[in-house]
Amino acid sequence: MDFSSFLTSLGTSFLLFFVLMCLFTWLSRRPSNHVIYYPNRILRGLDPYDGFRATRNPFTWIREALASTEADVIRCSGVDTAVHFVFLTTVLAILVLAGVIILPILLPISITARGIVKVNDTTSEGTFDDLDKLSMGRIEESSPRLWAYLLSTYWVSVVTYYLLWKAYKHVADLRAEALMSPEVKCEQFAVVVRDIPPPTGGQTRKEQVDSYFKAIYPDTFYRSMIVTDNGKVIKIYEELEGYKKKLARAEAIYASSKKGGNPEGIRPTTKTGWLGLIGKKVDAIEHYDAKIKELIPKLEAERKLTLKDKQQCAAIIFFNNRTTAAAASQSLHDTMVDTWTVLDAPEPRQIIWTNLPKHFYQRQIRQYVIYFIVFLTIFFYMIPIGFVSAFTTLENLKKLLPFLKPILDQQIIRTVLGAYLPQLALLLFLALLPKFLLFLSKAEGIPSESHAQRAASGKYFYFSILNVFIGVTIGSTLFSTLKEVEKDPNMLFTLLAQSLPGSATFFLTFVALKFFVGYGLELSRIVPLIIFHIKKKYICKTEAELKEAWTPGDLGYATRVPGDLLIFTVVLCYSVIAPLIIPFGVVYFGLGWLVLRNQVFKVYAPSYETYGKMWPHIYTRIVASLILYQITMLGYFGVKKFYYAPILIPLPITSLLFAFICDKKFYRFFQTTALEVACRELKEIPNMEVIFRSYVPLCLRSDSEKADEDQFEDALSHVSRSSSMA
Amino acid sequence: MDFSSFLTSLGTSFLLFFVLMCLFTWLSRRPSNHVIYYPNRILRGLDPYDGFRATRNPFTWIREALASTEADVIRCSGVDTAVHFVFLTTVLAILVLAGVIILPILLPISITARGIVKVNDTTSEGTFDDLDKLSMGRIEESSPRLWAYLLSTYWVSVVTYYLLWKAYKHVADLRAEALMSPEVKCEQFAVVVRDIPPPTGGQTRKEQVDSYFKAIYPDTFYRSMIVTDNGKVIKIYEELEGYKKKLARAEAIYASSKKGGNPEGIRPTTKTGWLGLIGKKVDAIEHYDAKIKELIPKLEAERKLTLKDKQQCAAIIFFNNRTTAAAASQSLHDTMVDTWTVLDAPEPRQIIWTNLPKHFYQRQIRQYVIYFIVFLTIFFYMIPIGFVSAFTTLENLKKLLPFLKPILDQQIIRTVLGAYLPQLALLLFLALLPKFLLFLSKAEGIPSESHAQRAASGKYFYFSILNVFIGVTIGSTLFSTLKEVEKDPNMLFTLLAQSLPGSATFFLTFVALKFFVGYGLELSRIVPLIIFHIKKKYICKTEAELKEAWTPGDLGYATRVPGDLLIFTVVLCYSVIAPLIIPFGVVYFGLGWLVLRNQVFKVYAPSYETYGKMWPHIYTRIVASLILYQITMLGYFGVKKFYYAPILIPLPITSLLFAFICDKKFYRFFQTTALEVACRELKEIPNMEVIFRSYVPLCLRSDSEKADEDQFEDALSHVSRSSSMA
Repeated sequence: MDFSSFLTSLGTSFLLFFVLMCLFTWLSRRPSNHVIYYPNRILRGLDPYDGFRATRNPFTWIREALASTEADVIRCSGVDTAVHFVFLTTVLAILVLAGVIILPILLPISITARGIVKVNDTTSEGTFDDLDKLSMGRIEESSPRLWAYLLSTYWVSVVTYYLLWKAYKHVADLRAEALMSPEVKCEQFAVVVRDIPPPTGGQTRKEQVDSYFKAIYPDTFYRSMIVTDNGKVIKIYEELEGYKKKLARAEAIYASSKKGGNPEGIRPTTKTGWLGLIGKKVDAIEHYDAKIKELIPKLEAERKLTLKDKQQCAAIIFFNNRTTAAAASQSLHDTMVDTWTVLDAPEPRQIIWTNLPKHFYQRQIRQYVIYFIVFLTIFFYMIPIGFVSAFTTLENLKKLLPFLKPILDQQIIRTVLGAYLPQLALLLFLALLPKFLLFLSKAEGIPSESHAQRAASGKYFYFSILNVFIGVTIGSTLFSTLKEVEKDPNMLFTLLAQSLPGSATFFLTFVALKFFVGYGLELSRIVPLIIFHIKKKYICKTEAELKEAWTPGDLGYATRVPGDLLIFTVVLCYSVIAPLIIPFGVVYFGLGWLVLRNQVFKVYAPSYETYGKMWPHIYTRIVASLILYQITMLGYFGVKKFYYAPILIPLPITSLLFAFICDKKFYRFFQTTALEVACRELKEIPNMEVIFRSYVPLCLRSDSEKADEDQFEDALSHVSRSSSMA
Repeated sequence: MDFSSFLTSLGTSFLLFFVLMCLFTWLSRRPSNHVIYYPNRILRGLDPYDGFRATRNPFTWIREALASTEADVIRCSGVDTAVHFVFLTTVLAILVLAGVIILPILLPISITARGIVKVNDTTSEGTFDDLDKLSMGRIEESSPRLWAYLLSTYWVSVVTYYLLWKAYKHVADLRAEALMSPEVKCEQFAVVVRDIPPPTGGQTRKEQVDSYFKAIYPDTFYRSMIVTDNGKVIKIYEELEGYKKKLARAEAIYASSKKGGNPEGIRPTTKTGWLGLIGKKVDAIEHYDAKIKELIPKLEAERKLTLKDKQQCAAIIFFNNRTTAAAASQSLHDTMVDTWTVLDAPEPRQIIWTNLPKHFYQRQIRQYVIYFIVFLTIFFYMIPIGFVSAFTTLENLKKLLPFLKPILDQQIIRTVLGAYLPQLALLLFLALLPKFLLFLSKAEGIPSESHAQRAASGKYFYFSILNVFIGVTIGSTLFSTLKEVEKDPNMLFTLLAQSLPGSATFFLTFVALKFFVGYGLELSRIVPLIIFHIKKKYICKTEAELKEAWTPGDLGYATRVPGDLLIFTVVLCYSVIAPLIIPFGVVYFGLGWLVLRNQVFKVYAPSYETYGKMWPHIYTRIVASLILYQITMLGYFGVKKFYYAPILIPLPITSLLFAFICDKKFYRFFQTTALEVACRELKEIPNMEVIFRSYVPLCLRSDSEKADEDQFEDALSHVSRSSSMA
């Protein structure tokens, strides 16, 4: 890639960002688009503008974002979001603090080192001289100037330790504060029990569970709820809900047909067969009505059957105080560790019910099998990434696809393609994976959605680092040097160190593309906007359908976190070798912070709350990146034949020690709730019945809750009415 | 070593054993020796003979041992002892089951393989033909007869898995039964808290601890006891106790002098200076009396000072029910894991008080430093062991110490020395180490004596395996092949496999010596008997001194367990290569079982009870031995150029899996108490005051407990009188 490509890339990226910003300013003011730009506020019942409309300033959103506090974030999007901001702030602070010292020192040193650079040791293979001046590649072998780079490596590490430590402490405080809040949170009163052994002596499952826990917690045990196999109920329930929607839709169509000149209206019709496309033609409203009337008793019968006969070997136990629940989730209950396994109850909305009854060893085996599949996935994707890397140069493209030659010879296409092609291919390619990884993580038998997201995020991170960072870096020299690595795996770090400078501009462009285009798209929400308007015009007929069309997603940590971590790893590893990347990193995380603040207040609605359990996960990976950076630098100083390179050896050791100490000090509190936190006073005496009911799966709740409360009580008494209630 | 040496060794060992047995039968009947042979029974207030005296059969003790049940063992020596018997029984069963199948198959196979043995591949370097016939070394390379050996390897492994699994289950049951006993055990009502942060806001340490735990356990918290720095009190207390003993002794001397013809008696004198040897001569009784009178108020003052001003950052917390204590010891209390660390309270008698206030990170650092010291110890002892190995042959001895030649040329000395010298040197050498390892383990900051013993036992095991087993085996070829190992560490197993047959007879003799002489000495208690009689005659003057002289020790797990494990490892590793070792192993563990049963009922008094916490420790090391055996066999089949050797590869993998599953299923219950176990009903309402007082260190208790109960209450109220008592 030459310098003009780089500038083109930057320029077009910025242009695109500018256009998207303008679009955002313009579109977000149109009231018909409010549901896309302010869904979070609308869902919370607030006015979209909240007094800011007066100014027509396109940068109002920036002012709003900067004015908001952490408490605001927690209030309107929860602790998890606040923790993500801690992550962004910490990384931003690391880069700013590193840059403030490194840039003014290292840039002059490498500029003044001009004249002694070798052609085969530049950051851009000799064609990109201007950027090249500013990198460590320019420094002569074993030059005393390398001392500055060595000290910079130390500086970056020390800054990272200091800020990470502060951040971990802060996050632990956030978590503690949230958990000791006087609000009643139902998950704090419950624990999940798995691996319940088969009941003996003619006991029902429920009697067994109740008597077991009543013996251990005579004063604090409230009630139990046996997990049931809801597969069939869910099927009927979904069928019923489907018909209800269709009925509402048919009625809406009928009503709107009345308006249009024809006071009688046209009654919509449907066909009874597959997808309403084949079979006998019938009146839609009557048909759906009949179906619903047929399904309601069927659902009720299936519900009763499920509650009675499909009880599984897992249960949710409710206690009437938080301390007992917190202590119970940490204690060994049975002498055999693989029975009566107890864990913290997740929020009702994030329980993966089907995973609860999976058995202890099944979970273990699933976990290892899936680790193996992920391992294969990571390493077999290496091959396509290798191809991407081979296509990176236009010359290769012309050679491989000679019929494209006339097109590629045009200067403008050449420049644009040269700038974007490899990065776009990579970004597209990465978009395929997360869903697959989330599916795999759920198949491990993980009991909660948030945990599955964390597991998927971890897998995606390793994939990104291995394939994007290491793959692309070494990729350019991969085929020539793969054999050397095979001979001696330790070579990998030296090889990585040697190849790093060659890929610096690729990653500069990669980061720039990610923030300009990525954040532009995120802020302007062009894609959801278009989809919404299409749906609104052609598909949605009822209010409910419309609401479904604009309801925002959550923050999507499973891809957001590894994405940001990848950028951080890249920037960190290049911070000393090509310090010019630091400002790009600063812009990435700064802009990211701003855009996300806006989106958090106005758009996204979090779909669960874990009180910061994501943090240790993020933290570990930041430290892993740091160690990768330190070892790579050690390798690179070796390549530079710097006599004092071993001075860097204490760094990775310190990092491991730092990780170990942080883990010891903080980690356990992120796995469980500390009793000191759980024992705080509540605002009110908790209504245990409400807490209990919040855990009843939707499909097992009676529809007509208001009408026949008694029937509802009756149906559930099969599950869980404990005699302690009498 | 030639065949006659081997037979001499066996013969003299057996002779010694026989003599010691006869001595035991004769000596144990003399009433004056009862305190040596029946101290456990005497301490428990039982008649030494318990109806068995009628028979004058010297094998009565064997009948008694065989007739006793596990329940008897638990009743009179505790669960730990019963668990040790489970270990002995399991190992014995493994060897018997293995031997019953292996011996009748493998012995004929190797005997009929005569004629094809090579001189450099025998078990005794060609000089010991008779034993050699029975070993795997006789089998030709890649002979199909090796199939039998391969299947035997599988058989031994499968037997070990099956019996270990059964044993682990049984031990878990024993532990559960003991822990759910309706007897009140004070350690079940307490937890130890360490790393208490400095008190804030003018609180005393006691107020801080009390308010912290009362908030978390409003209903179940009983009282707290702050750990104090007792160094100075202990010094004064011991001085006082010393003078009391001396006074009693002086009075006894005075009383006995009255009997001997002189009705006035001679008042004993002492000197005031160092050890009573220098200084002014004074009347002993008056002098000690004055000293005691002087020390009592000093002790009282120091006690008050200690209780008030020397409170440390650790405490013992008492709860009024077992379930809460069990749950508390497993729960995270503070958000920072390194403060308010809670653990199960050990029994009062085994608490290492000085280790309780050691800080979190200090403990961590101490642990790693000590691991490093142990590592050095293990590897620097290699050098002396190398010498032992070099001295093993008389030829070497003659070469190195030529002046011994005339002595060594005498046939009888030659034979005896050849049989015993190396083994005796080794045994003597091993006797030096355990105390040092126990000292190191305590220095780690471990809070209880039993835990320190376990830690020492672990260290001693690794030492034994590395130095005795691997050291001696490879030792003979060590100097020639050390360089090869340096080049490729994987060579170690092949080398070990190659060297094993050469050391078979050494270990046969080693095992025989250990059981004949070791058990003979243990049963006959010659050494304690002689020491006791010397003390009785020349030193002890008072009843208390006499009792101190015969009070038996405990079972000494820190050396007993690694010793037995070493023998098991040796027998296991040779079980297929030289199956003749199996009967030796069977005798070792069978005889060991019998002798220990006798000693447990009549001699030893356990000094602590951990309810089987030693078991996972033993279990892990048995599995480690099994893996060592499997890998060695794999190596040896490789040496034999057996084409199907890779069939053994699944074995070590299965062992790891087996260890993993057992660990997952059972281990946690051995670390903590399961709530299901702790919640069982008690026989009576526990007297919390008694429980609390049992934890007051001896030196802080008032002497005159009966006289001024109030003063005792008063003194302690500084520590721990909680307002919840009011």
